[in-house]
Amino acid sequence: GSFDKSVDFANYFCTYAFIYHQKEMLSDRVRMDAYYNAIFNNKHHFAGKVVLDVGTGSGILAIWSAQAGARKVYAVEATKMAEHAKALAHANNVEDIVQVIEGSMEEVSLPEKVDVIISEWMGYFLLRESMFDSVICARDKWLKPSGVMYPSHARMWVAPVRSGLGDQKMNDYETAMSDWYSFVNDTEINYGVNMNVLSQAYREEHEKYYLKTSLWNSLHPSQIIGTPAVIKEIDCSTATVDEIRNVFANFLLPINVDRTRLSAFAGWFDVHFRGSMQNPVEQEVELTTAPSIDNSTHWGQQVFLLHPPLRVDVGDKLMIAFSMSRSRENHRLMDVNFTYELQLSSGKCFKPVARKYYIE
Amino acid sequence: GSFDKSVDFANYFCTYAFIYHQKEMLSDRVRMDAYYNAIFNNKHHFAGKVVLDVGTGSGILAIWSAQAGARKVYAVEATKMAEHAKALAHANNVEDIVQVIEGSMEEVSLPEKVDVIISEWMGYFLLRESMFDSVICARDKWLKPSGVMYPSHARMWVAPVRSGLGDQKMNDYETAMSDWYSFVNDTEINYGVNMNVLSQAYREEHEKYYLKTSLWNSLHPSQIIGTPAVIKEIDCSTATVDEIRNVFANFLLPINVDRTRLSAFAGWFDVHFRGSMQNPVEQEVELTTAPSIDNSTHWGQQVFLLHPPLRVDVGDKLMIAFSMSRSRENHRLMDVNFTYELQLSSGKCFKPVARKYYIE
Ligand SMILES: Nc1ncnc2c1ncn2[C@@H]1O[C@H](CSCC[C@H](N)C(=O)O)[C@@H](O)[C@H]1O
Ligand SMILES: Nc1ncnc2c1ncn2[C@@H]1O[C@H](CSCC[C@H](N)C(=O)O)[C@@H](O)[C@H]1O
Repeated sequence: GSFDKSVDFANYFCTYAFIYHQKEMLSDRVRMDAYYNAIFNNKHHFAGKVVLDVGTGSGILAIWSAQAGARKVYAVEATKMAEHAKALAHANNVEDIVQVIEGSMEEVSLPEKVDVIISEWMGYFLLRESMFDSVICARDKWLKPSGVMYPSHARMWVAPVRSGLGDQKMNDYETAMSDWYSFVNDTEINYGVNMNVLSQAYREEHEKYYLKTSLWNSLHPSQIIGTPAVIKEIDCSTATVDEIRNVFANFLLPINVDRTRLSAFAGWFDVHFRGSMQNPVEQEVELTTAPSIDNSTHWGQQVFLLHPPLRVDVGDKLMIAFSMSRSRENHRLMDVNFTYELQLSSGKCFKPVARKYYIE
Repeated sequence: GSFDKSVDFANYFCTYAFIYHQKEMLSDRVRMDAYYNAIFNNKHHFAGKVVLDVGTGSGILAIWSAQAGARKVYAVEATKMAEHAKALAHANNVEDIVQVIEGSMEEVSLPEKVDVIISEWMGYFLLRESMFDSVICARDKWLKPSGVMYPSHARMWVAPVRSGLGDQKMNDYETAMSDWYSFVNDTEINYGVNMNVLSQAYREEHEKYYLKTSLWNSLHPSQIIGTPAVIKEIDCSTATVDEIRNVFANFLLPINVDRTRLSAFAGWFDVHFRGSMQNPVEQEVELTTAPSIDNSTHWGQQVFLLHPPLRVDVGDKLMIAFSMSRSRENHRLMDVNFTYELQLSSGKCFKPVARKYYIE
């Protein structure tokens, strides 16, 4: 689709220009520990090397890379946050190593190729924000053939879950609709205009908002009622934009909880730091955003509500056809489709149901 | 400044494309009654006439104009809401009179000049959104010399108020800052990076957010502790963009409540429907957004907090120098300055204090 840079700034980059938002990420212990350990437990990848940090934000990953011994770190940041990153590098005595470059990755030029690309590019359900495009662009342009990617691998997961969120949202939706109908009534009585012709459009607007837009949630592991499935694996060293622009997957979700209610699908991701085949890490690090009691992240999980929920039992299976593509109006947002077919342990099969969702 | 149309859509127009948002305005009884009465109590301005509705939204004002006997109504709307306006006109049997035109007022062409321009262009504190620019443009291009403006006049008001909002926001601000300092501490201990160099910038970010950004509030009339002042009057038939781009005023606010606390200035507006000198209304209608028990509006008032609040007493006076201009980054938002000087009834004068605010 068409792509307007200043609209992208208004819609997307703007939030990253606030320290407040950077701080949210910097306060995510799971995220921070993973990158910290990936770097400091694998110093051989950094010592004496040239590093590129794609989207440096506050500069944290660039500073760590310098502290781990990098010879030079190019830290590219599109927003004004670049100025704070510069100040932070200086205050932490790595200003000679870390060179902050304000500009978008696609447009800046580096004086040399790099040994390592490090980046924290993951959005909700991995691909929201489409920032991995910029990492691919950086890799193809600036990474030496022998270079390594941090992280090196990424996966998307889906699981069947139970949750009260759907009832709540259905309630909100129904309240909104009954409020609409009294509004239509009042407007006719008080102002002589019949608004009922807009009821269908209003319903669609609110269905989208309350029922079809995926929700951020930090699920409890006990809400997972079946075996999660990996629906997409990405090798960060080789993936192309074409490979991630559309995600398709057919998979099975076996229910493993007694007589319960399937009320949503949950989506999350993990990434791994493994280095490359020729140049592996010494210690592999995993960053997972799966439901967890002690290790929840700011990404949480994306919840796709099912209306109505399904009664399910251990031994039942869900056959799922999943697809995700970019929203036509905003390439950083996603349109998601789930087609699900419940097969009971008795053998009985229900008709497939297709549902459309928006990751906003 | 530079002006990017697609950014303006992303930032501004987008919200108006939701029926939800139009409904909020359509549910504002004070607003609706004012326009309804202005039209139906002054049918001589509409019967047999050609009307232009600038920013028709749902089409409500255009449909009323048709119901009041207009020969033709051009209803211009920039967003997709235009399609709903079309449907609504049809459902209310005025599709032959109301011609909905999807496009921005600055760019559309009408087949004829008009007798009346009606528009609901008012934003928070009157001028936020800068939509009156589009009405001026429409007037200069399409209104017959004998034509009338609905509304015909507008005024901005300021009053001294007491409110607990300031304490609350100061509290939020202080909590945010102490949270920041423990974050700085934790980040140094856990991750070996000292973030303290960003503390000043973080403070400014949060001062702006919690203390310097004006707040929407529906004030109780008893919170007004002095005589409100009109700080700007606009004649909609003659005003130019130059006249509204910057607003300056010097005025006096006498305190008229015993031993109380001045904790903020409040700003609101009213508009009047008077027709024109040559062609006055039969019945004048006022739409006021002043603090009110029974007649509050969705505009509420804009509250500009004073830190620290001042002890004041009946008989004290505030000398105010006020200025408002458009934000450099977004011409639809405003930068406001209040310089205030307290003069006690005893004659004692305090030093003038200058404060900067943002209407976001
Ligand atoms: N194409 C691009 N060019 C430059 N910066 C980009 C970019 N796409 C995203 N960014 C920036 O990348 C950052 C992602 S958030 C991660 C920030 C930092 N690396 C950390 O780990 O804490 C944001 O600050 C965003 O503004
Ligand atoms: N320059 C412009 N051209 C066309 N429409 C505009 C415009 N500036 C603002 N608008 C539209 O004007 C409307 C203002 S809100 C008022 C809507 C309607 N007249 C009512 O009274 O209920 C919004 O729908 C907005 O999209």
